Amino acid sequence: MISNPDRLWSATGNRMKRSAIREVLKLTQRGDIISFAGGLPAPDSFPTAEIAEIAREVLEQDGAAALQYGTTEGDNRLRQVLVDRYNNIEDIGISIDNLVICTASQQGLDLIGKIMIDPGDKVICGLPSYLGGISAFKSYGADLIGITLDDKGLRSDLLEIKLKELQMRGEKPKFIYIIPDFQNPAGITMPKSRRLEILELAHKYDVLIVEDSPYREVRFEGESQPMLYNLDNSGQVVTLGTLSKIFVPGFRIGWMIGHETIVDKFVMAKQSADLCTSSFVQKIAALYFEKGYFDKNLRYIIDSYRKKRDLMLKSFEEYMPEEVTWTTPEGGLFLFMYLPETMDAGELLFDAIDEKVAYVQGDVFHCDGSGKNTLRINFSFASEEMNVEGVKRLANVIRKKL
Amino acid sequence: MISNPDRLWSATGNRMKRSAIREVLKLTQRGDIISFAGGLPAPDSFPTAEIAEIAREVLEQDGAAALQYGTTEGDNRLRQVLVDRYNNIEDIGISIDNLVICTASQQGLDLIGKIMIDPGDKVICGLPSYLGGISAFKSYGADLIGITLDDKGLRSDLLEIKLKELQMRGEKPKFIYIIPDFQNPAGITMPKSRRLEILELAHKYDVLIVEDSPYREVRFEGESQPMLYNLDNSGQVVTLGTLSKIFVPGFRIGWMIGHETIVDKFVMAKQSADLCTSSFVQKIAALYFEKGYFDKNLRYIIDSYRKKRDLMLKSFEEYMPEEVTWTTPEGGLFLFMYLPETMDAGELLFDAIDEKVAYVQGDVFHCDGSGKNTLRINFSFASEEMNVEGVKRLANVIRKKL
Repeated sequence: MISNPDRLWSATGNRMKRSAIREVLKLTQRGDIISFAGGLPAPDSFPTAEIAEIAREVLEQDGAAALQYGTTEGDNRLRQVLVDRYNNIEDIGISIDNLVICTASQQGLDLIGKIMIDPGDKVICGLPSYLGGISAFKSYGADLIGITLDDKGLRSDLLEIKLKELQMRGEKPKFIYIIPDFQNPAGITMPKSRRLEILELAHKYDVLIVEDSPYREVRFEGESQPMLYNLDNSGQVVTLGTLSKIFVPGFRIGWMIGHETIVDKFVMAKQSADLCTSSFVQKIAALYFEKGYFDKNLRYIIDSYRKKRDLMLKSFEEYMPEEVTWTTPEGGLFLFMYLPETMDAGELLFDAIDEKVAYVQGDVFHCDGSGKNTLRINFSFASEEMNVEGVKRLANVIRKKL
Repeated sequence: MISNPDRLWSATGNRMKRSAIREVLKLTQRGDIISFAGGLPAPDSFPTAEIAEIAREVLEQDGAAALQYGTTEGDNRLRQVLVDRYNNIEDIGISIDNLVICTASQQGLDLIGKIMIDPGDKVICGLPSYLGGISAFKSYGADLIGITLDDKGLRSDLLEIKLKELQMRGEKPKFIYIIPDFQNPAGITMPKSRRLEILELAHKYDVLIVEDSPYREVRFEGESQPMLYNLDNSGQVVTLGTLSKIFVPGFRIGWMIGHETIVDKFVMAKQSADLCTSSFVQKIAALYFEKGYFDKNLRYIIDSYRKKRDLMLKSFEEYMPEEVTWTTPEGGLFLFMYLPETMDAGELLFDAIDEKVAYVQGDVFHCDGSGKNTLRINFSFASEEMNVEGVKRLANVIRKKL
């Protein structure tokens, strides 16, 4: 080995830290722990038989192309299926040139970071926000500015104060990172009115918005709110989507929708990052949609997760000490929990793991390190019975610390 | 859209350029062009029936895991299969902790760039070198230093001069990028003696080596030369491998082998880049090896590409003007051609495309822009008949310009 391995790392390499979620997930691989930590879909929602049937069909009909290199932009049939779906459901009027496949939306976050962020660049995000987004942006040296959420999502009043303050210093953030639907981790959905307020600020202060919406179609109740991309319709919003929560995460298929200028740069970055996403899984996914299997399975996912959420909320009511509160998401995979201000969810995690239950401490989702008394609970992965048992264990752990 | 989109890009974003290969490949999607441009395997080498059988088996036996998120390091069965294979064939004594799956070796190149290269950092590579490596390193701002090859690969005498010169200036390159087997694009294989010379310099000047060896197992004749990783055995070599040329590129499976210190940082970078590579294709690949299908198919690939190379060389002898020379690779997918010094392969390409034949101009593989009179010819993708017809067309194009 070279004499001083530390000399190898770039500034980016030096900024890389092991993810807290990842380390927790490792602990929870012990079979007897009930883990609320990951963001994993329920395995019983995976349409294995249909995928086996379609894989065979793809290989028989289109094997040479399915196993070959594909274009960097992605498989055209899959792109068209997704474009049609967006245009039908969301009426956003995009063409295939606005949508690029990426290796799940995590790659979308990473490539946006790569093409846009120089060390020290400001990026605005919610307090809290998706850890994978925070990590990707931080890896490129982003100076993240957190804006507190209320029950409508990222607070537009605080956003304007911050944008004004930056403007007075002659600074402009690279973008505002928004997870508008069933926000990860907070579970909050932004109503149309707040979306419009934020877009107005984005236009006024001339700042791009990155809209990350992996759970948008996993809505249990209430009315779907228009996409920021749609409300804007000027190219100032970039939207990330993924099949991970509405089909299967094991295919690693996501996409970025944006203005041609951004698509063009994104494709160049993707080419150097992995040349292309697997043609095989893209072609399976395209045919899965074309055969009309998608919607039926999505309904199953929604019904199943709604039941799990309802039962989890009921169990919280039943077992949690009254000092504890939580959010009630209209969809998605996560609940967010608030312990009494004096408690530290990171410290509590060790006790929880001793009691064979795990979660993710909320401070890792806060770019400013706040949120010590918060934690994120996934309700999609474990069975209903295990979810209830996990809540009991967690309630006991919390109660002991009160 | 924001008022000035150019303001969006980071320094990296600004360095991104559309790849010449990619643009040529687009032109060659017209059906009537015989393309020697891509690095595509022969579609008839894809074991579609076996993959269909195994996909079904994986989904039946392990569907929930195959469609779920996997660990960032990769599927343990696949890692073990690859580790065992390396230890059996190459006797390199690695453990599973030394090998990480990535989304094909292009991601390996990208992540090595990300964790190691700061703008202005020196990286040494061959003149010529794989374009995807050059692009990845340049995207992070690497200052590439090209070292001329001779018939044994990267010249160790010139390497020492350069390393000494850098040392006198108090500089140290981040790594030396070597493609030792059937080098892309030059087709040259580095003999053991040259490998030892380069390793000695790497140790003397305390510099890491990145060994990129996608075609290593596609050897038509002659004796396999030991891996740099093996000759070093001190952790100072990082090796990249891939299934793209020895199985299928459509799975996007590659790997990085290295010292635990580097593996650790690499995994952190991969986590933020795409969380994990598709579990589904990893599990199919693992079972494909376990069932013993791999070696039989590899023999088919080797035999088929050897025949194609032989016929291509014969056609060159027959049709090429005598002013043109080329390399004779012992394996791999590419031949490298030298036109007379006064000819420009980039200019010639327009004429070639008019005559319905395409290749990649050699200067794009030269980090210093030299090699104007060179070009890369792929012989694996097209049929033997098309290869011969393509050589005739290309010979005509060249002859007209003499």
